[in-house]
Amino acid sequence: MPRNRRIVLVSRPTGKATAENFRLETVDTPALTAGQLLVRNHYLSLDPYMRGRMDEGRSYAAPQTLNETMLGQTTGVVIESQNSSWPVGTAVLGSFGWQEYGVSDGDGLRKLDTAVIPLSAYLGAVGMPGVTAWYGLNRIIAPKPGETVAVSAASGAVGMIVGQLAKRAGARAVGIAGGTQKCRFVVQELGFDACVDYKSKDLGVQLKEACPKGIDGYFENVGGAVMDAVLPRMNAFGRIALCGLIAGYNGAPIPITNPSWLLKSRLRLQGFIISEHFDIWPQALEELAAAYARGAIRYRESVAQGLHNAPQAFLGMLEGQNFGKQLVKLID
Amino acid sequence: MPRNRRIVLVSRPTGKATAENFRLETVDTPALTAGQLLVRNHYLSLDPYMRGRMDEGRSYAAPQTLNETMLGQTTGVVIESQNSSWPVGTAVLGSFGWQEYGVSDGDGLRKLDTAVIPLSAYLGAVGMPGVTAWYGLNRIIAPKPGETVAVSAASGAVGMIVGQLAKRAGARAVGIAGGTQKCRFVVQELGFDACVDYKSKDLGVQLKEACPKGIDGYFENVGGAVMDAVLPRMNAFGRIALCGLIAGYNGAPIPITNPSWLLKSRLRLQGFIISEHFDIWPQALEELAAAYARGAIRYRESVAQGLHNAPQAFLGMLEGQNFGKQLVKLID
Repeated sequence: MPRNRRIVLVSRPTGKATAENFRLETVDTPALTAGQLLVRNHYLSLDPYMRGRMDEGRSYAAPQTLNETMLGQTTGVVIESQNSSWPVGTAVLGSFGWQEYGVSDGDGLRKLDTAVIPLSAYLGAVGMPGVTAWYGLNRIIAPKPGETVAVSAASGAVGMIVGQLAKRAGARAVGIAGGTQKCRFVVQELGFDACVDYKSKDLGVQLKEACPKGIDGYFENVGGAVMDAVLPRMNAFGRIALCGLIAGYNGAPIPITNPSWLLKSRLRLQGFIISEHFDIWPQALEELAAAYARGAIRYRESVAQGLHNAPQAFLGMLEGQNFGKQLVKLID
Repeated sequence: MPRNRRIVLVSRPTGKATAENFRLETVDTPALTAGQLLVRNHYLSLDPYMRGRMDEGRSYAAPQTLNETMLGQTTGVVIESQNSSWPVGTAVLGSFGWQEYGVSDGDGLRKLDTAVIPLSAYLGAVGMPGVTAWYGLNRIIAPKPGETVAVSAASGAVGMIVGQLAKRAGARAVGIAGGTQKCRFVVQELGFDACVDYKSKDLGVQLKEACPKGIDGYFENVGGAVMDAVLPRMNAFGRIALCGLIAGYNGAPIPITNPSWLLKSRLRLQGFIISEHFDIWPQALEELAAAYARGAIRYRESVAQGLHNAPQAFLGMLEGQNFGKQLVKLID
């Protein structure tokens, strides 16, 4: 059996997470027993929710166990099998975590068709981030034609899809992203109607220009100053899909400075976790896969090379340094 | 025609509202023309939303005009009439504002049956505050039997009704109020299961004790530190009816310190203004009137005597000095 490299959590962050919270280990891959299969992971998905699991404390998910492999979704290929349902060569989506190999009896794995959609996309546009965008946009914001939908982290894994789905629903899509390069991509490559740069001049002024009829739906991935700038621009009866608050993940929580807009504009805000809405996954994945396959959804990836680069890629993502869906490629 | 006393807004507050923002005036009551009627107002309702109207700036309601009579709901009796639909002696609900008399052609007035329900109650339990409680509790929180519903300003006009409706729905009702006297009233007179005193020791600890199974629905009238203490105690998929944020009305807005609970606990928060939900008023008023008439809803009023005392009563209410629905009695 091959030697397996993995990354474990060795300590919980106090404030900012750092590379010292992680350790790269090399361990043996156990010999397969009857019914088991060995997967060579090709891609690891890095997602903001992982930062929450590094902490202790009450949340929707149990904290990541210390000295165990960091949790996470992966796509790969079966390379050894003692399970006829999962022959060698089968492409699979699994939750093997931050490691190069995974052993399973098939439970919880999903077979992937890579004829048209590549392994990496099943961790992004045609995976959890895509379904997250689909749910928040269609089930919480539910935009009507002519309405305006804004989304923060617009060049991120989820935000990219939110705006494109909003356009397909007939809404005006306005992104919020960090830097002119990301904003240009969001408008020119993804087809959003506008994108404002939160690192540039006053965000409220920019939003007012980009959303001349106000904002009816807001897909929130960031929080903090971005949310503070959006709230006064929301129209009456606006909807906020609260998906993430990444600005506050890596330290102290960041307040909502003026919650009175929630009342004055009669806003509805709904926090959600996509893993609790499995009923919509089949429909969402089918729609996303079809759109992706015919090129109707544009998508960008930021791929770190090699498991040893996963911690830096993850820490960079928390600071907005990624550009598109953040992945780690686990094979050469 | 009688001389009419009225209170006008002479200046907008900078920060805290003060008595100097108001002026008591005596003016002539115009002679009635054909179709008009003259109402002697008996009760004026003082409500927190009035503070918002004293300011300029975008909100759901236009600001109160300077040097005009302060807006507000009143109940009274027709004392002169040139309109056969509104004979002398008719009891009416109107929006005559902070003044002793009102002239109308009947438009916007509602006839009241005072056989069982007194004039004052139509401004409280069987009026706008009662309907506000009904809507937020039944249409936003929608408690299931056995769930826990918390409400801030629990001894106030709206809060009193929220808890009693929650009890009728089979939920555990927990009030939050300022001071032991109010808390005792909320439990002993109104029948809430518990009430915690935000002026006493750590509110989070008290809430944990009073809500051993967490909080499923929260009716928010206050905001600020009270909301900060409630959010961590909310259960997954909790609902927040955002009705008021009185803690921040009389000065700078007060932040939500840790909005991450909205996400972690997948909360739904809905701001609302009861005047936009006229569809539910008939049902709500019918239920509230029936319950009030048979003594199934307990209710307390704080009555200031005389129009000249309206500003102090209003300013006191913003500081939580009222105990029950704040009214001004406009006749001796």
